[in-house]
Amino acid sequence: MLLGAIDIGGTKTLVGIVHTTGRILTKRQVSTDTTSLSSWLKVCSDMLRECTMEISCTMQDLLGIGINLPGMVDIKQGHLLRCSYPGWEKFPVKKRMVGLTGIDNIYVDNDVNSCAIGEMHFGFQNTYRNFLWITVSTGIGGAIVSDGCLIRGALGCAGEIGHTKVEYDKPALCACGQVGCLEAHASGTAITREVQRNALIDPAFHKHFIDMGEPLDAKGCAVLARNGDETALSIYQAAARALGRGIGNAVNLFNPEAVIFGGGVGNSLDIIKPKFLHVLNQTVNPALLPVEIVQSKLGYQAALIGAAALVVDHNGNRTLDC
Amino acid sequence: MLLGAIDIGGTKTLVGIVHTTGRILTKRQVSTDTTSLSSWLKVCSDMLRECTMEISCTMQDLLGIGINLPGMVDIKQGHLLRCSYPGWEKFPVKKRMVGLTGIDNIYVDNDVNSCAIGEMHFGFQNTYRNFLWITVSTGIGGAIVSDGCLIRGALGCAGEIGHTKVEYDKPALCACGQVGCLEAHASGTAITREVQRNALIDPAFHKHFIDMGEPLDAKGCAVLARNGDETALSIYQAAARALGRGIGNAVNLFNPEAVIFGGGVGNSLDIIKPKFLHVLNQTVNPALLPVEIVQSKLGYQAALIGAAALVVDHNGNRTLDC
Repeated sequence: MLLGAIDIGGTKTLVGIVHTTGRILTKRQVSTDTTSLSSWLKVCSDMLRECTMEISCTMQDLLGIGINLPGMVDIKQGHLLRCSYPGWEKFPVKKRMVGLTGIDNIYVDNDVNSCAIGEMHFGFQNTYRNFLWITVSTGIGGAIVSDGCLIRGALGCAGEIGHTKVEYDKPALCACGQVGCLEAHASGTAITREVQRNALIDPAFHKHFIDMGEPLDAKGCAVLARNGDETALSIYQAAARALGRGIGNAVNLFNPEAVIFGGGVGNSLDIIKPKFLHVLNQTVNPALLPVEIVQSKLGYQAALIGAAALVVDHNGNRTLDC
Repeated sequence: MLLGAIDIGGTKTLVGIVHTTGRILTKRQVSTDTTSLSSWLKVCSDMLRECTMEISCTMQDLLGIGINLPGMVDIKQGHLLRCSYPGWEKFPVKKRMVGLTGIDNIYVDNDVNSCAIGEMHFGFQNTYRNFLWITVSTGIGGAIVSDGCLIRGALGCAGEIGHTKVEYDKPALCACGQVGCLEAHASGTAITREVQRNALIDPAFHKHFIDMGEPLDAKGCAVLARNGDETALSIYQAAARALGRGIGNAVNLFNPEAVIFGGGVGNSLDIIKPKFLHVLNQTVNPALLPVEIVQSKLGYQAALIGAAALVVDHNGNRTLDC
């Protein structure tokens, strides 16, 4: 069986077809045009139709379509509650997509929730019934699964681990306007900021990037850290400490079996793990340990696979047998 | 209809009969004897029988019995998973109580979970489907209700807000052995510790307690704070800051509609509220605000009413219509 998947991010949009086993059969990637959501959905449905043609099927062969939207999503109404692009809020995404495709089974959610749901259907599946899914990328997002169910909260905004506070002494300013947020201390953006700040005051550190042919960002810093650069390592260790604090507090509150990492910085688990685990163990009540720390089984395309998972999920909210 | 309620705490035990409207009809209170749980349950069942006689009914008139146990509880097995009293762990509480009373409908849980379940049945009822219940007393305990369901976690230990970390610069030592825990900065014990520390170095502060005829503890400190004592107020403000940080982080993770306070320090909400709200607003992502901050509707006997609520709760786990 085939699932339509659309992952609309602020920067890029992925459209693809995923098999009910979780394998991506074909996909397209384009830069997101945020001018008009209505027009952008037309572009997405056209790309999806191309995908179906590519694998010799039609839209009507799809079991349904899952759509990730960049913002706070009302999954019942099928629209964005909050979004920074003009005109996107409350635009009837689900209704528009039904009109464009003739398919009724259309589900929307935000990308981090989709990833957690994807993990339950196509990743670790039944291995964990209680877990925290955390995306450490440009920003930091989280989703919480308790007894096989995604926790949504009063407004559908649960899981905001990126804005839990982890630093009170020298808190960094976050994009949200508050200070000391996990996102301001451990995201790719935060690591890049520290890289550039250190490069300005430490010419030897800057030269190391040039010598290695690496960009002055989080990715380049990971290469230098693996190559033994002390400053690069210390930048990742500060991020690891912040993650240990933030995730440790979440573990105290949820008592999960596992923490599943996704996103770019999640790929640097090898660098951050020793420091991260040290701080985690200082933070989590010993009765709740051990907690498994693992990388997503969905890989780099977690959000696209997650969008597809929305379709097979019972009602877009509850999963497994709950 | 009548409900049997037994609240076994580490210090005191309450036994009573609660009407299905949530009203306590009669109750007994005694100091807990932790020598033998088996013997103590016999004492409790005898007290419960006395209670039934007092209101001219019999054990068989009870719809069931709810029992709070002091530790980590396995609600399915009906026993304590972890407890600091020798021989209490894994003692078959539910089975023993069935034998002692001839009643099959017996449910066990820890007191904070019972309070949250009690709040849903007899307190705020359907007012909130997503809330954080927090007991600020000798220690600090929490329970999280998401979409009308209590979150239990992998081991039944979710809600450990008292051990989330709120201070990294000058962290206080917690009874758990870790440092910087909310409990170490905002519990009655923590406030009493600060009162006594300040009384040692500030004779005028100490004299104020003597003049007011108040004990050198959290309760006395509340009286002085309400009377305008600057040091007493600053001690409560430090606790309020810690609560704002810890609860703020929990709000970011759960997106609740309300935070419900119970316990002795919860009665000092009038003193802590301005500072607490200030820090809460600095901590919570603005998209998740406002959050209602209220006191439990169950009053001082919340845990006893909560024990009774375990009986009317559908299956000891899920409540309301979930």
